[in-house]
Amino acid sequence: MNAEPDTRSRILATAREMFHSRSYADVGIQEICAGAKVQKGSFYHFFPSKQDLAMAVIDDMADDWAHGFVAEAFDQALPPLERLDYMIDAAYYWQKAAKDIEGRMPGCLFGNLALEMSTRDDVMRAKLNAVFDKAMDKFRTTLDEAVLTGALAAMDTEATATAMLAYLEGIILLAKARNDPEVILTLGPAIKTLRIEMRH
Amino acid sequence: MNAEPDTRSRILATAREMFHSRSYADVGIQEICAGAKVQKGSFYHFFPSKQDLAMAVIDDMADDWAHGFVAEAFDQALPPLERLDYMIDAAYYWQKAAKDIEGRMPGCLFGNLALEMSTRDDVMRAKLNAVFDKAMDKFRTTLDEAVLTGALAAMDTEATATAMLAYLEGIILLAKARNDPEVILTLGPAIKTLRIEMRH
Repeated sequence: MNAEPDTRSRILATAREMFHSRSYADVGIQEICAGAKVQKGSFYHFFPSKQDLAMAVIDDMADDWAHGFVAEAFDQALPPLERLDYMIDAAYYWQKAAKDIEGRMPGCLFGNLALEMSTRDDVMRAKLNAVFDKAMDKFRTTLDEAVLTGALAAMDTEATATAMLAYLEGIILLAKARNDPEVILTLGPAIKTLRIEMRH
Repeated sequence: MNAEPDTRSRILATAREMFHSRSYADVGIQEICAGAKVQKGSFYHFFPSKQDLAMAVIDDMADDWAHGFVAEAFDQALPPLERLDYMIDAAYYWQKAAKDIEGRMPGCLFGNLALEMSTRDDVMRAKLNAVFDKAMDKFRTTLDEAVLTGALAAMDTEATATAMLAYLEGIILLAKARNDPEVILTLGPAIKTLRIEMRH
């Protein structure tokens, strides 16, 4: 019997929920230990610093999403444009469920951390950009396929994919400010109108 | 001679710079007093709490922008669609100048605070939403005029204006994560492709 993986998971889950629903700076290690019911010594055994913990939280959430609704949304069996609809729907239902439970729309953990920490932590910033790169790549592959099958006219798919990711983060930002997931549903479908032409 | 307005302005300017380049939680009152060279007693005379200070900082920045580049961008003498280009250019040059001075792109103070504080401070959230409402109204008026003059086909101008504001916040978020103002310049022009049709 080895309790270690369980202890580590408990710290991760507690930190993830606290960082997401509040902020990185607002949550202290002591509070995380109390929430996860672990001793500080045990915490430092798994995570030498709060930054190390944040890195693991980002990996953990990115992995969950990559194997969860991001995988479902960008399923190659769906027509390309329906994948975009699915992604918006998934973001809406996820935020709505979180608000129904906690009364607060937490927004996107990656966007939250990017705005809170980018000027002060280049290690975390690099980690977040790697997550954004992967998301952007899903959009780009989708757009490439839509162009190839004639569903969309030729465009700069890389720039447009980045624009779509920015828009998704932007509508989640505004919805969080309004504490209203319906903003995602109202604004989301317009993601398909974004277009950046190829440079000549 | 009355030094009070000067003292208050100094506190405001110091806090604004610190909140913007770092975050709300990361900056303490003691540090603001030291930076502004004022005593704590004097600080509390003007601002009973850190939250009161943040409210004044938001007002101060929103006023500066409303009378500065937002007024220039949304000048009624400009054709409607050129106002959108101007707004993107202004955001780019502002962020670029800030990065050239500090080495870091600070992003949008309102967007930063919205993601950091929305789940925890409804007073600040309401204040930020009032700023977003005003910005959204500028976009809406512009779109209404573009539709009226035939520059754009009829659309849901209110929803599209909100989409444009979300997109602006989203591209600034991504540019901040990349610490690269050029992202604003690359993605910005696509703001004009966003469209939400009227509901029937």
